[in-house]
Amino acid sequence: MKQESAQSPLLAARTSGYGLLDSISSPADVRSLRLDQLPELCADIRRYIIDNLSVNPGHFASSMGAVDIIVALHYVYDTPNDHLFWDVGHQAYAHKILTGRKEAFANQRKKGGISGFPSPLESQYDTFITGHASNSISAALGRAIADRNTPGKEKCKTVAVIGDASISGGLAFEGLNNVANNPNNLLIILNDNEMSIDANVGGLHYYLSELSTSAGYNKWRSKLYNAFRRKGVVTEAGKGRIQRFANSVKSLVSGKQNIFEGLNIRYFGPFDGHDVIKIVKILNDIKDMETPRLLHLHTVKGKGYKPAEENPAKWHAPGLFDPETGEKICSVSKDSPLPWQEVFGRTLVELAKQDERVMGVTAAMPSGTSISRMLEVFPERTFDVGISEGHAVTFSAGLATGGKRPFTAIYSTFLQRAYDNIVNDVCIQGLPVTFCIDRAGIVGEDGVTHHGLLDIAYLRCIPNMKIAVPADEETLRNLMYTSLHSDGPMAIRYPRGKATKKDWQTEMKVIEIGKGRTISETTESDIAILTIGPLLHEAKNVVESLKEKGVKADLYDMIWVKPLDSELLKHIASTHKTIVTVEDGVKNGGFGTAVTEFIRDNHYDVNVVTLGAPDSWVFHGTVAELRRDCGYDSAGIENAVLSLKKHLS
Amino acid sequence: MKQESAQSPLLAARTSGYGLLDSISSPADVRSLRLDQLPELCADIRRYIIDNLSVNPGHFASSMGAVDIIVALHYVYDTPNDHLFWDVGHQAYAHKILTGRKEAFANQRKKGGISGFPSPLESQYDTFITGHASNSISAALGRAIADRNTPGKEKCKTVAVIGDASISGGLAFEGLNNVANNPNNLLIILNDNEMSIDANVGGLHYYLSELSTSAGYNKWRSKLYNAFRRKGVVTEAGKGRIQRFANSVKSLVSGKQNIFEGLNIRYFGPFDGHDVIKIVKILNDIKDMETPRLLHLHTVKGKGYKPAEENPAKWHAPGLFDPETGEKICSVSKDSPLPWQEVFGRTLVELAKQDERVMGVTAAMPSGTSISRMLEVFPERTFDVGISEGHAVTFSAGLATGGKRPFTAIYSTFLQRAYDNIVNDVCIQGLPVTFCIDRAGIVGEDGVTHHGLLDIAYLRCIPNMKIAVPADEETLRNLMYTSLHSDGPMAIRYPRGKATKKDWQTEMKVIEIGKGRTISETTESDIAILTIGPLLHEAKNVVESLKEKGVKADLYDMIWVKPLDSELLKHIASTHKTIVTVEDGVKNGGFGTAVTEFIRDNHYDVNVVTLGAPDSWVFHGTVAELRRDCGYDSAGIENAVLSLKKHLS
Repeated sequence: MKQESAQSPLLAARTSGYGLLDSISSPADVRSLRLDQLPELCADIRRYIIDNLSVNPGHFASSMGAVDIIVALHYVYDTPNDHLFWDVGHQAYAHKILTGRKEAFANQRKKGGISGFPSPLESQYDTFITGHASNSISAALGRAIADRNTPGKEKCKTVAVIGDASISGGLAFEGLNNVANNPNNLLIILNDNEMSIDANVGGLHYYLSELSTSAGYNKWRSKLYNAFRRKGVVTEAGKGRIQRFANSVKSLVSGKQNIFEGLNIRYFGPFDGHDVIKIVKILNDIKDMETPRLLHLHTVKGKGYKPAEENPAKWHAPGLFDPETGEKICSVSKDSPLPWQEVFGRTLVELAKQDERVMGVTAAMPSGTSISRMLEVFPERTFDVGISEGHAVTFSAGLATGGKRPFTAIYSTFLQRAYDNIVNDVCIQGLPVTFCIDRAGIVGEDGVTHHGLLDIAYLRCIPNMKIAVPADEETLRNLMYTSLHSDGPMAIRYPRGKATKKDWQTEMKVIEIGKGRTISETTESDIAILTIGPLLHEAKNVVESLKEKGVKADLYDMIWVKPLDSELLKHIASTHKTIVTVEDGVKNGGFGTAVTEFIRDNHYDVNVVTLGAPDSWVFHGTVAELRRDCGYDSAGIENAVLSLKKHLS
Repeated sequence: MKQESAQSPLLAARTSGYGLLDSISSPADVRSLRLDQLPELCADIRRYIIDNLSVNPGHFASSMGAVDIIVALHYVYDTPNDHLFWDVGHQAYAHKILTGRKEAFANQRKKGGISGFPSPLESQYDTFITGHASNSISAALGRAIADRNTPGKEKCKTVAVIGDASISGGLAFEGLNNVANNPNNLLIILNDNEMSIDANVGGLHYYLSELSTSAGYNKWRSKLYNAFRRKGVVTEAGKGRIQRFANSVKSLVSGKQNIFEGLNIRYFGPFDGHDVIKIVKILNDIKDMETPRLLHLHTVKGKGYKPAEENPAKWHAPGLFDPETGEKICSVSKDSPLPWQEVFGRTLVELAKQDERVMGVTAAMPSGTSISRMLEVFPERTFDVGISEGHAVTFSAGLATGGKRPFTAIYSTFLQRAYDNIVNDVCIQGLPVTFCIDRAGIVGEDGVTHHGLLDIAYLRCIPNMKIAVPADEETLRNLMYTSLHSDGPMAIRYPRGKATKKDWQTEMKVIEIGKGRTISETTESDIAILTIGPLLHEAKNVVESLKEKGVKADLYDMIWVKPLDSELLKHIASTHKTIVTVEDGVKNGGFGTAVTEFIRDNHYDVNVVTLGAPDSWVFHGTVAELRRDCGYDSAGIENAVLSLKKHLS
């Protein structure tokens, strides 16, 4: 929905009139403030974020929650000589605003503007690219150890800021498990707002809640800490001992134990993540410790903006809104088609009602994937496993060994994290897991870390895998139904955004695996356009437009990347001189390559031209803009055909 | 080394004369024994494993360590109605021997014989394929929940057996973190032998050691448990409470805390994993608990065979040996070339001596990859991060942001677990991480889960990635040197086994990126053979052999898959009718496909024939056998050329 909104004319937010913030153009300016001015700066930043995001949509609730931590970090640390690693960087808007990108912030996520995530390509203050959760501890540990081994940089500090959802990912655990292996000064800040985009799940989540809610104990613990601090006994060594003793007592009181201490990481907290003055004091206390440590801070998503505090999930990325009232400005017509996700979610519920073997699995994206539809109706058969894509896939494989039919809905870009699980746990065993690959292709404003452009190439080489790409709702539904009624793994990929029509609720049927369809065919055309997915509709327009220009091109919706429709391809290859393939994915190894391999192996004398994403990174902008740049929007397809025609004639 | 050994003539081990084991042909037979007979059965199984593996090499030390646990499990559980999931299944030889594969065990890991890992394709007792570590908890959880939701199977039990090294992987943590989310009866057995193939690393490892060595406490705890058991107060609910209280007390005593309890998983242990009678009693006690729980058992790698107990790392997979003396039978000549790994390891040390930016990173495979060479000389610049491939890559990226030059050595098949890390954390940022991809191509006896056949296809679609494949030691060294002296990520892949020559220690130099070489060329040949990697040497033989048959073929060592040598390819394409590509990887999307894409995009009228692994799974056997089956050994290449020649003439 955001996508459409971003295309509507935007109001420009002011860049001044924000009190203390007006005088800040770098972290050095933050450090020149008095400690007691910081709460005011935080409030100014929040107003700035509210005003900007109300006219230029972005990630709202988590950004609001992290403001105080960010101000405190830049106040205490000597950035950029000290290094901050943000986990899921959309929390870091305040960081961008404080590091010379206050004006540029008005163009964040727009084509040519700054990224919605930290990016070393745009600022020396952004140490690492972030977009996929759970990588901050590993990356920051690498940096901390690199600095320690570099003459002149031994004293540089490294901080990783990670959310309570991100820290539940396996990669974060691998990082935690390695933190204490080598001498380093890494500080991990756990920004704990008790939720992911959706409600958080998992043992660790309950553990953190418990850790944070033993009220009596915390009060006592806090007093103890302050008393020791006042008396000056909180020394380098002493701090750790007190902490460890306190945590053990706490284990007894709460019946829980401290996981981080178990991993040899000193644990401090939990503290209020919105008390910027206190955070500064704590950071100053623990800043020079030469040991890995974790500071647990509690924050509230959407902090400082009441509507968001009250409903943080809806305010994760709210789109346009009225900053005064919090009312969302929705430009979407009620007559427009449903998003692909919604069609998937509702269809899954239908299948689950028909067949009790159907299970739904997702990884921290129940509402994003609309698997939440099934969660409402069949909570005991729907599993949100948190930010754990690898587990989601292997767990699905386990379900399948027990005769179940898991439909595993994961965004294309995040499915990359489950690659080995797909290969080993699903495909070698040929288990009937249906991969519902959401956000496939270009996703728009979220940019380079979020496009789903590689999936066809990385899945196509795996034996036993089937890959299908529906062009419309009916085909999506039939593919899901077909997967349920056939054997082995199948991947169905569909993009972000609206599907194609209003009447989508057709009766489902089994369709033939590896069978494409002819959309339009003449006997006089030497050019065939082969599409997969909803780009078919662009291609249809192209065929019409070309017809008006006197150029004939035939059109085929191949549906299946694997297995290819060899019969249809033989027909096409023997009746055309040139094939143009169109896909919303990398050309390098993708659908067009599959067609090329077929033509090669069957010795047809046919020219194949492939349209798709290039062998270079695609950054952010609207979907339309980026497809145009990649040359596979309507104009791109038409130009390709026309230049071929010129070449052929 | 194993590879060569397996090709030598084998002695057949006896299949009878093993006491109680002679009468066992299924787990039901185990269950018909008296409890007090089990130690004898364990001893018999150990003798059987020793005798068999002495003549037919396999994974020795971990298999010996798990015998008692396996016997106890089959004694207590109703297999195959109850389900056992083995993590890194090479521990499960005793399981194979007890489940109808006693005779077949003599052919394990041989072509046509049983797999060295559990495989549902060969037995109903093997619930899940295992070969890549850390997947058992996720898969078993899926099965436990599937059973719970399947009429008639609600009472089936599920057990995951995981080692202390495997449990440190991120996937295992994701599993643990999800175990307590939904009602289930999963039992996790932690088979803790305090080591991976190499010494175990990480916070969790120290944690587990600590948990196991608070001797005073353990004694007290054990007494308490037994007392309660005798008095019948260890009820379903009571057990958990006692346990939790005990763990909290233990936290105070040991200064450590129980991680599993923190994740809402009941923890029992540690107990002696070789006291089969006691294990049976404990399993009976906790078998019917309707809650996820973890039983921590201590085992000794190589248990029951003194030489292996004394040096378990060397006895991980010892090759042929004399069962009486423990002396290894090594058929490798001292004059033969070094393994690729050894050349890599020694070269890395040279580079590290030249350039202090060089860092070495591996994931639980220091000796397998020979990065141990660098670990010996530069321990502070060499990092074994345990079974954590994702972390290894993101940590390397972090090192690279700090100006370091990490050489990250991971087996091809395991690198699949770091796919997203390669894409997001390294390639988007264009960081100079050198991926030293070991065990690329067919690996032989370890089979389907261990071949490194997909890497070219899954890496080739990633923008910014460079991929090179050396045919000899000199090129490997030059590639490593070139990566050190150029920008951005580079992947260098090399196979398992011996390299090519004795004089490998050439002076290193920068070579041109994307530049192949002509090996032999005539002006009269219409066929060009293009290889990457050491298959060049097979192709050289083919060219000689063809010459004798009067057939001329030109030969090129392309070295680079990405970027391709476009100049050389243009020359080849304009001077030949047919190109034959040869690679030790999947054809589907691999090197041959890259060449095909080039020919297509440059409109050459050239026939491309690709040789490589098919789009179906390759199982186990010797490397030579499997390459022959795939049609890319010398004979395969020659046949391909001859049949083309026939076709062309």
